[in-house]
Amino acid sequence: MFPSPADPRAQSGKAPKSGGPVAAERIADLAAASRILAAQGVVDGFGHVSMRHPSAPERYLMARSIAPALVTPDDIVEYDLDSNPCSASGRGSFLERFIHGEIYKARADVMSVVHSHSPSVIPFGLVRVPMQAMFHNAAFIAAGVPVFDIRDKFGATDMLVGNEEKGVALAEVMGDKDIVLMRAHGSVACGATLQSAVFRAVYTEVNARIQHWTLALAGGASIAALDREEGRLADIVNQAAGMRAWELWRSQVRRQVAW
Amino acid sequence: MFPSPADPRAQSGKAPKSGGPVAAERIADLAAASRILAAQGVVDGFGHVSMRHPSAPERYLMARSIAPALVTPDDIVEYDLDSNPCSASGRGSFLERFIHGEIYKARADVMSVVHSHSPSVIPFGLVRVPMQAMFHNAAFIAAGVPVFDIRDKFGATDMLVGNEEKGVALAEVMGDKDIVLMRAHGSVACGATLQSAVFRAVYTEVNARIQHWTLALAGGASIAALDREEGRLADIVNQAAGMRAWELWRSQVRRQVAW
Amino acid sequence: MFPSPADPRAQSGKAPKSGGPVAAERIADLAAASRILAAQGVVDGFGHVSMRHPSAPERYLMARSIAPALVTPDDIVEYDLDSNPCSASGRGSFLERFIHGEIYKARADVMSVVHSHSPSVIPFGLVRVPMQAMFHNAAFIAAGVPVFDIRDKFGATDMLVGNEEKGVALAEVMGDKDIVLMRAHGSVACGATLQSAVFRAVYTEVNARIQHWTLALAGGASIAALDREEGRLADIVNQAAGMRAWELWRSQVRRQVAW
Amino acid sequence: MFPSPADPRAQSGKAPKSGGPVAAERIADLAAASRILAAQGVVDGFGHVSMRHPSAPERYLMARSIAPALVTPDDIVEYDLDSNPCSASGRGSFLERFIHGEIYKARADVMSVVHSHSPSVIPFGLVRVPMQAMFHNAAFIAAGVPVFDIRDKFGATDMLVGNEEKGVALAEVMGDKDIVLMRAHGSVACGATLQSAVFRAVYTEVNARIQHWTLALAGGASIAALDREEGRLADIVNQAAGMRAWELWRSQVRRQVAW
Repeated sequence: MFPSPADPRAQSGKAPKSGGPVAAERIADLAAASRILAAQGVVDGFGHVSMRHPSAPERYLMARSIAPALVTPDDIVEYDLDSNPCSASGRGSFLERFIHGEIYKARADVMSVVHSHSPSVIPFGLVRVPMQAMFHNAAFIAAGVPVFDIRDKFGATDMLVGNEEKGVALAEVMGDKDIVLMRAHGSVACGATLQSAVFRAVYTEVNARIQHWTLALAGGASIAALDREEGRLADIVNQAAGMRAWELWRSQVRRQVAW
Repeated sequence: MFPSPADPRAQSGKAPKSGGPVAAERIADLAAASRILAAQGVVDGFGHVSMRHPSAPERYLMARSIAPALVTPDDIVEYDLDSNPCSASGRGSFLERFIHGEIYKARADVMSVVHSHSPSVIPFGLVRVPMQAMFHNAAFIAAGVPVFDIRDKFGATDMLVGNEEKGVALAEVMGDKDIVLMRAHGSVACGATLQSAVFRAVYTEVNARIQHWTLALAGGASIAALDREEGRLADIVNQAAGMRAWELWRSQVRRQVAW
Repeated sequence: MFPSPADPRAQSGKAPKSGGPVAAERIADLAAASRILAAQGVVDGFGHVSMRHPSAPERYLMARSIAPALVTPDDIVEYDLDSNPCSASGRGSFLERFIHGEIYKARADVMSVVHSHSPSVIPFGLVRVPMQAMFHNAAFIAAGVPVFDIRDKFGATDMLVGNEEKGVALAEVMGDKDIVLMRAHGSVACGATLQSAVFRAVYTEVNARIQHWTLALAGGASIAALDREEGRLADIVNQAAGMRAWELWRSQVRRQVAW
Repeated sequence: MFPSPADPRAQSGKAPKSGGPVAAERIADLAAASRILAAQGVVDGFGHVSMRHPSAPERYLMARSIAPALVTPDDIVEYDLDSNPCSASGRGSFLERFIHGEIYKARADVMSVVHSHSPSVIPFGLVRVPMQAMFHNAAFIAAGVPVFDIRDKFGATDMLVGNEEKGVALAEVMGDKDIVLMRAHGSVACGATLQSAVFRAVYTEVNARIQHWTLALAGGASIAALDREEGRLADIVNQAAGMRAWELWRSQVRRQVAW
């Protein structure tokens, strides 16, 4: 039963089956990831982070529709890749959950997705200046940053990726990258682990701030950003070393909650 | 009786009648709105938020003259649309309450008004660069942002909208928009609900920050901001989805106070 | 007796007489002013605020050499206008107390002085772009902002106003204004009350931030800043209305300390 | 025994001898320095500060691999100047400890080293605009700021100074300065005391922010920064006066921990 008024299909009784139980610790980490992104200024009252079901690749987990800083483990809902909740139990779903579902469909290597509207990043979706990797922590950006303009395929809209078709279009523009900007809206960062996706979302925001300052300094001259090979090599290190940042952030959440 | 020395008319004994009782929860929400705007950096020691009386459209409610972060439900005063307090009980009134009264007079659809001096927004009232909607959360800006210059009608002043005449002039410049900038002063954001006005004031500030960065990036090239139709469509969603942000902000105030 | 090693003259036994007792509440307000300036980001580990002795115009009061955020009423020391401590009791003095003493000598109307290195303000002392009043809260700036370059009279120095001669030179450049910038160093803001000097120091910092953004927006076009007459009129209002901000800031200090 | 998997040489049994015991208070200060740098925004989840062993100049002390804000005195490990731990006891080492070891080798006068990725500073390593001293607190910068590009000697890398050879190259570029920027990575600040190195790292970040604003204001005109002699003179004062900032920062750490 899916009594959520925001999700009419969920009320039709065709709820998909669950992919099976998930360890409480992993659910807690996903809830903590929401609070981490809020504490780091990547999300505010809006934005969401998901992870693929650890043992059922055709399912993913994400909070019900709630501000990221308020998420608890009880708010985590399971979805199939069409973004139908397996058991919402009256909990509303994010309008833009299709971002997550369609990326998981298109990209078997992606295990976690963050969608945010971090203010420093938005400008790079509004002008024709490509985001570049300003330092090693944002190395994954050196592979290139595509920009999705919802207007190209859908004309004037409410700007939201609010159905499967729009999610498919977004995933197509992202292609094999782990980041995509959304014109006049926000961005998406992906990773092979929850921790890596969160790390990338945080350092995309930091990188954007650094690039604003650097472009102003450069005054049109070129910037000695990470090149593609430096980016590839540094990103490998980040996958492991990034856990040091995660442990800091996770400990900060633990000081506030019991999970 | 209106013993407030800041409001001589209130001492004349011609106090307007109250529009009737208002639910304690709504008064608490209005007081919370002040603290929310302070916590979000939209107001500092100055600025104010009001709402129209829920059952008496010829009355509005606003805090006595006090810093927004300190407002409690007991500080809320009722005014008529000429901005005379119904019962100040010794509580001083904001010098600029006429901003609120005259907008409520001119615009039957407006139920709440926020006046602030948020630093990122002020520059757009000082130069001839129009504010544009940088992302969907600030969609209401896509309808256009007029600028009120008090000098046009009143010459050199103390810059304050401190009487009815100046309030009328401000409301005229605002016209049918839900925002107006005030040269060398601040801005006003309006909404059909208290929550919507607060949401718009917060995202006007965020939008201004994003636009500063975007214009610097653009270097004179055009910006792919929300167009008017995108703004209209996204603003409809914001009216509902904005409650998610309100619930976050309201919960943060509840952690500090008992109301 | 003045055993402070930082103040050799104080050890000579020629300590000036005190101007008499000062109400504990006023001393507490001065100590609170230090903490307010730290909380508002105007000072960090450095910077100082003083007030003229309420009943002895030839004396002033200022904290011993200590970080502003740590000042307590017991740290307040009395000085004569040559900046000799009346009774330091082993407490060290700020090297730059001559800023305060020499301004009090030169300007009978000044009752309080703030010296700070607030980061947004420093740029205006390094280039030939005059600071202008961007909004009514910074109205006092509309009278003009002189820049003191210590190099003009003293050649290469450690940049500090560390003796009477340098203090005199700074006060001369300030003239009849209530603000002076110091090249590659910081600034000074003055007022007819402690509260007014603090208010002006805070809004000088805010104004500087707004002007950076505004100049970037303007791209060389003119800025509709407060003109001199608007500045004069708005500053009169600020003297009274500024107390609303003071009451907020003072209450925030009271939440941390018992005085 | 050095069971740390991150440090294979440590497992070979060739652990260098300790330089002898260090006073608990000094170890606590080093741990506090990490937290100070985090609180001041100089480091985030990454970055590290070390000090030379007080009585054994061929040894230095630094935290195990952990986020700076989490460091406690128990996390401090002793290293020889080849950056081998004397007794890691299962504690992992920072990949980039060679920055510290090789600077201590090359520069007998350096007693403390801070490595950070502070966002405001990174732009100056990406473009050909030299960092200048914007105010007296950053006086040491007036001596000049070299930029190390790891690509010059090592081609495409993971950007990390992860072995002795790279540490040597970095120390060579730094030369007799107390600061070096690292292209697309971060920076290093040194001092004759732990307190001085921390002070310089903090004010390098503040100075970078001020310079961004100043360059934007200047619009190509020259900036009246500290000249070399002013920088030399002001830096002497900073060595002593900087303790006032340290005492503030140290007291803030003491409010959180028992050491």
